[in-house]
Amino acid sequence: MKSYRKEIWMNVPKRRAFINITPQVEQALRESGIREGLCLVNSMHITASVFINDDESGLHHDFERWLEALAPAVPGPSHYRHNLTGEDNADAHLKRQVMGREVVVAVTDGRLDFGPWEQIFYGEFDGMRRKRVLVKIIGE
Amino acid sequence: MKSYRKEIWMNVPKRRAFINITPQVEQALRESGIREGLCLVNSMHITASVFINDDESGLHHDFERWLEALAPAVPGPSHYRHNLTGEDNADAHLKRQVMGREVVVAVTDGRLDFGPWEQIFYGEFDGMRRKRVLVKIIGE
Amino acid sequence: MKSYRKEIWMNVPKRRAFINITPQVEQALRESGIREGLCLVNSMHITASVFINDDESGLHHDFERWLEALAPAVPGPSHYRHNLTGEDNADAHLKRQVMGREVVVAVTDGRLDFGPWEQIFYGEFDGMRRKRVLVKIIGE
Repeated sequence: MKSYRKEIWMNVPKRRAFINITPQVEQALRESGIREGLCLVNSMHITASVFINDDESGLHHDFERWLEALAPAVPGPSHYRHNLTGEDNADAHLKRQVMGREVVVAVTDGRLDFGPWEQIFYGEFDGMRRKRVLVKIIGE
Repeated sequence: MKSYRKEIWMNVPKRRAFINITPQVEQALRESGIREGLCLVNSMHITASVFINDDESGLHHDFERWLEALAPAVPGPSHYRHNLTGEDNADAHLKRQVMGREVVVAVTDGRLDFGPWEQIFYGEFDGMRRKRVLVKIIGE
Repeated sequence: MKSYRKEIWMNVPKRRAFINITPQVEQALRESGIREGLCLVNSMHITASVFINDDESGLHHDFERWLEALAPAVPGPSHYRHNLTGEDNADAHLKRQVMGREVVVAVTDGRLDFGPWEQIFYGEFDGMRRKRVLVKIIGE
């Protein structure tokens, strides 16, 4: 069994954004030399997500508006007790639960084994600082 | 390390439904000959889910009603910008995030290592066409 | 390839709670002797979650309040058809979908490969009875 590990660093210049990281994950897979196995991609931060969906800007706008309705960004402790700690990012911890921490992708014949429209996104909900995604691939 | 790959094809005759695919996944596991490892089951489409929950029709009705309240099916672009593309399935992309893309199930002694009520479902949110689930098993 | 399996049993004395199980998962990893691989941690029950987020009591209060707004605990069949079966836990099945069934964590150099604040939680939504979490680790 082989294993390969790589970090993808990001510094999203906005508080919230969706970044297509499929090319970086494909690059990590090529570097690994693994042909058959599983590829884990996860946010290393608890105010961000990794998820698979469509690379369409209208949909990303819909995600943004929908998540804001489900878990609005309200700084200060009036709405979220977490913000009593001095943080202002409670909403980001909630949004990340809806969108998920990680994806596991099959590796087949040296490629990410994807359906026709699958793309991997980093969902940033508390940006404007350096944050990381972990890629861990195991197989042969 | 062994690996095994299988696609499960479906054509759900309704827009939305929950289909128990546990028997097909168990069949794939038997075909694989793998006794210890991990089994990934994921939707290959971004308007559908794979998830584990209860095989109870009342609960499925509750899921349907709940998801419709969280992300209502509204064709046309009045509610979702994604539908400006000519699609009418923005709600399906959102519902799939709540229910999830994939499950990873432990394989122990040649069986899916499940608790008492766990069953694997395909959640279709934009049906009436041929779509696929991927099963990828690695182990020994 | 090595594999290791362990069950973590719990009996949460309240209906709902979030329990940090990171020490138990780390203990299982030490017992496994696995240095490189993947660690699956999943609830074996469909009214509970395993997820990764912050170990901060204010945030847990926010999760509780938020989930209760998304899927309120209403016993009896007035709100949920699942409760026609005699169960009163339909809300728990829904809450578990938001928070997730499982996490997959990279194992690197014999440790859970975590970002700075990642901690693994068991999310109980229908407690006051014995329930289990499964840890399955594969690798070398």
